[in-house]
Amino acid sequence: MARHIMTLTCDDRPGIVAAVSSALLQVSANIIENQQYSDEDTNLFFMRTVFDCNAADVERVRQAIATSPAVVSAALSVRPADERCRTIILVSKFDHCLLDLLHRWKSGDLPIDIVGVVSNHEDCRGLVEYYGLPFTVIPVTPDTKAAAEGQLLEMVAAHDVGLVVLARYMQILSDGLCRELAGRAINIHHSFLPGFKGAKPYHQAHDRGVKLIGASAHYVTADLDEGPIIEQDVVRVTHAETPERLVAIGRDVERRVLSRAVRDHAESRVFLAGRRTIVF
Amino acid sequence: MARHIMTLTCDDRPGIVAAVSSALLQVSANIIENQQYSDEDTNLFFMRTVFDCNAADVERVRQAIATSPAVVSAALSVRPADERCRTIILVSKFDHCLLDLLHRWKSGDLPIDIVGVVSNHEDCRGLVEYYGLPFTVIPVTPDTKAAAEGQLLEMVAAHDVGLVVLARYMQILSDGLCRELAGRAINIHHSFLPGFKGAKPYHQAHDRGVKLIGASAHYVTADLDEGPIIEQDVVRVTHAETPERLVAIGRDVERRVLSRAVRDHAESRVFLAGRRTIVF
Amino acid sequence: MARHIMTLTCDDRPGIVAAVSSALLQVSANIIENQQYSDEDTNLFFMRTVFDCNAADVERVRQAIATSPAVVSAALSVRPADERCRTIILVSKFDHCLLDLLHRWKSGDLPIDIVGVVSNHEDCRGLVEYYGLPFTVIPVTPDTKAAAEGQLLEMVAAHDVGLVVLARYMQILSDGLCRELAGRAINIHHSFLPGFKGAKPYHQAHDRGVKLIGASAHYVTADLDEGPIIEQDVVRVTHAETPERLVAIGRDVERRVLSRAVRDHAESRVFLAGRRTIVF
Amino acid sequence: MARHIMTLTCDDRPGIVAAVSSALLQVSANIIENQQYSDEDTNLFFMRTVFDCNAADVERVRQAIATSPAVVSAALSVRPADERCRTIILVSKFDHCLLDLLHRWKSGDLPIDIVGVVSNHEDCRGLVEYYGLPFTVIPVTPDTKAAAEGQLLEMVAAHDVGLVVLARYMQILSDGLCRELAGRAINIHHSFLPGFKGAKPYHQAHDRGVKLIGASAHYVTADLDEGPIIEQDVVRVTHAETPERLVAIGRDVERRVLSRAVRDHAESRVFLAGRRTIVF
Repeated sequence: MARHIMTLTCDDRPGIVAAVSSALLQVSANIIENQQYSDEDTNLFFMRTVFDCNAADVERVRQAIATSPAVVSAALSVRPADERCRTIILVSKFDHCLLDLLHRWKSGDLPIDIVGVVSNHEDCRGLVEYYGLPFTVIPVTPDTKAAAEGQLLEMVAAHDVGLVVLARYMQILSDGLCRELAGRAINIHHSFLPGFKGAKPYHQAHDRGVKLIGASAHYVTADLDEGPIIEQDVVRVTHAETPERLVAIGRDVERRVLSRAVRDHAESRVFLAGRRTIVF
Repeated sequence: MARHIMTLTCDDRPGIVAAVSSALLQVSANIIENQQYSDEDTNLFFMRTVFDCNAADVERVRQAIATSPAVVSAALSVRPADERCRTIILVSKFDHCLLDLLHRWKSGDLPIDIVGVVSNHEDCRGLVEYYGLPFTVIPVTPDTKAAAEGQLLEMVAAHDVGLVVLARYMQILSDGLCRELAGRAINIHHSFLPGFKGAKPYHQAHDRGVKLIGASAHYVTADLDEGPIIEQDVVRVTHAETPERLVAIGRDVERRVLSRAVRDHAESRVFLAGRRTIVF
Repeated sequence: MARHIMTLTCDDRPGIVAAVSSALLQVSANIIENQQYSDEDTNLFFMRTVFDCNAADVERVRQAIATSPAVVSAALSVRPADERCRTIILVSKFDHCLLDLLHRWKSGDLPIDIVGVVSNHEDCRGLVEYYGLPFTVIPVTPDTKAAAEGQLLEMVAAHDVGLVVLARYMQILSDGLCRELAGRAINIHHSFLPGFKGAKPYHQAHDRGVKLIGASAHYVTADLDEGPIIEQDVVRVTHAETPERLVAIGRDVERRVLSRAVRDHAESRVFLAGRRTIVF
Repeated sequence: MARHIMTLTCDDRPGIVAAVSSALLQVSANIIENQQYSDEDTNLFFMRTVFDCNAADVERVRQAIATSPAVVSAALSVRPADERCRTIILVSKFDHCLLDLLHRWKSGDLPIDIVGVVSNHEDCRGLVEYYGLPFTVIPVTPDTKAAAEGQLLEMVAAHDVGLVVLARYMQILSDGLCRELAGRAINIHHSFLPGFKGAKPYHQAHDRGVKLIGASAHYVTADLDEGPIIEQDVVRVTHAETPERLVAIGRDVERRVLSRAVRDHAESRVFLAGRRTIVF
């Protein structure tokens, strides 16, 4: 018996759970975890089930679910639970989020395989190489942007990458790249969205005099800072913090939020429902 | 179709989920929510399922589960989701937890029916009667304690009470009463257990110089302050708080924690696993 | 010796603290607490000092500070520490913030004297009268709005009111009234400002798919939802909460945030610095 | 004008603040920040003042305070604000707290100079040397313990060390060493003290079924896990976490709590009041 994770998104209609249940019953699978949610806004149904069964029976389970009349317009995935999400990390000069991801990855905290770290600057090479990972510099200028994005996409395709993490990557992705990476590129924005979109959010936060600052991890979309939010958190501040001090305080919450979002994605816990996410 | 909540505790062995799934399948029930957990420490399996089915079919579901060979030593309950937990609140003189429960109950936040409020003092009569609820004073002295507990048990039996809330009730229940109310009496202890058991926990917290104080809601057992914890929370304090100020700060966290525990119990989300709880 | 609270706002220049220190030294006052802050954005200096001295010497302290050449464009106040802030609470139909304020006031948690509760509806009369306080209904229609605001201002003047609390009061104050009450009217907005300004913030939050919801207490200004923020807090939510459930969850954080802001104001801890607040 | 930090602990009696104020007035010092606290339990007075003055006048300030009749049994320190606390970090095999301290130090977040990292194992050498710091292995066995502690004390003396951080150092210090390092050795304990003292606190937490786990940073004393607490924090967990998962979750809170305590100590914000700390 091997552990598997099934994820299913489909139109919400009666009989889906029954279809999944009977598909698992027929191969005597043992359900370990199960979450489901019916979203009224999109009329979509979401399900994540962890189960044990003979590896030989997985295809039968998949077929039974996919061909059930109750399961319509489905996105269905069944994968071994120990399969790790192949990941590329994009970074510029700030290394706090990168370091956090590397440390958690090495500690076994994150079920990802880091294929490589890509940057438009040399700054983080030492850190990445200390962790024994390939570091690729792809400079980005207005003239080379298209080529740079093409090079990144080649890496994504070559390594069958399931996740691209923008760990304080200070370049705006083109609309085309956003579309290519839809649902598998996570950005960390250094504010509690939807407050303080755009540039210099900590300065905006200081000007507005908020008493908490935050960070938001979201899927990247062409609509800047408007992508579906996966995870957010905040930390208390006072009037006495300068914008510079807010930046320093914010580093803690940025890295915490980004790492949680990466883990959720890598464990197949995050589903897209329009501009929102379902996180099991 | 009517909504129902099923809760099941039984020995952990293969086939339980399959048994429940097929019992629901045969009456074309629609599963709305489902949580399960296998506890290695006790070798018990816990499950809570919310489903829609014809009310006429409920008994068939129950029978199918109860008689399944996979379901051994089971505690099984199926009830309409809109059935409200009949509740008695015990209180002494402090009224902050009581007020919070009454306000949430009246706002529709808590799925309970408050049968009555019982106190060993007159102090809270005005508040309880403002909310239109019966207020019963049962004084407790060493001589009358047995009779007082008998009177309470009669009320519990007469109203088929599913929950007794000790909302800062300053009397220790006898071992016998604890046994009678096992799993359906919730106490709020004004510390972050297991720290500061016993009397005057805020004074103990002040002496030890902790930087957070807390509260713990737990099922009442004969072993004082050792009952299974349902919910806990903390709040930050500084060196400058006197024990009296800690008491005032603590009121907030006490009432918040107790109300959450009461809601969890009333929604059938709490299961006993030895000295721990499973909270779905 | 009696305890006093001094608050001072003035232009930030050298010698202010020295001036205050020597003013207190000359009457042998004993400093109990002291906070100060120099705000670079406004070039203002803020100071709050708690001290013990003979009541007969207070005027001498005030004079010495006010006439010091270091203290320019000053707002200076010295008051007995046990003087309570005379307060009017405005409410409409939702009573959760009102109840929280009343309960804390009665518990001795809030150093305010509640002069009365004013509403544009009858709904909260029972609750207010249970607490033994005067309840005044001032209906508001487009035609009567000016008169209603006039009646409120008369009450404010007649009772020398230092704080008007909008405890989920569902009327927008006129620009004139906002100006009259500048720096002494606190509103609770049911979102984590600056996110979700305007109407139905919980519905906006649901639509945007945020993972935390919040509340903000701020001074009322003519610029709606843009007043200086005094206190904010958030609470974690999931995709599964409906807008209605967000409303219920939000009640907890609204009342907590509002009560903290009221206490801070009543203890003379809040200072205005442009569109921001300094909270000692 | 140069910025200085004064810290003062002395018997609590009238006139101390006046003495400090006039000492600063006479050299025209400008007070930037000021905190004070009178502790009733110990009858001690604590004060931390940040001020600007001519460096040449510092000794005059110190003398004036030290010789004031109001200042009795004083521990008085005046130091330049930009003087960094010389620090040794002790570590065994777990590197998460070490990494956090090194990263924050390199980011400029912590006002410390790390003199070196000492370990009883080789494991962390690569990490420490990546950060360009000296790494010293001092193995500890029952036979060599005294010599090992002697070697550490020599380093402390040679580098005039103001802080020794036990960043998950898995050796118990001898009573003698605890005394030598009193008030300048900080340990991180992986529980919310006073709960779960001793070994394997995460396993204890799992057994007791708590709903929050925590970490506590405290000064090291001969009385194990009983030293004065500087900082604590907690994180929410559920019944589903195994002890191993609690260990992983706990790493986050351990490093956060330890780093905050180190910063507070290095900024001279922490004072000892019996078995409690005052943290400004």
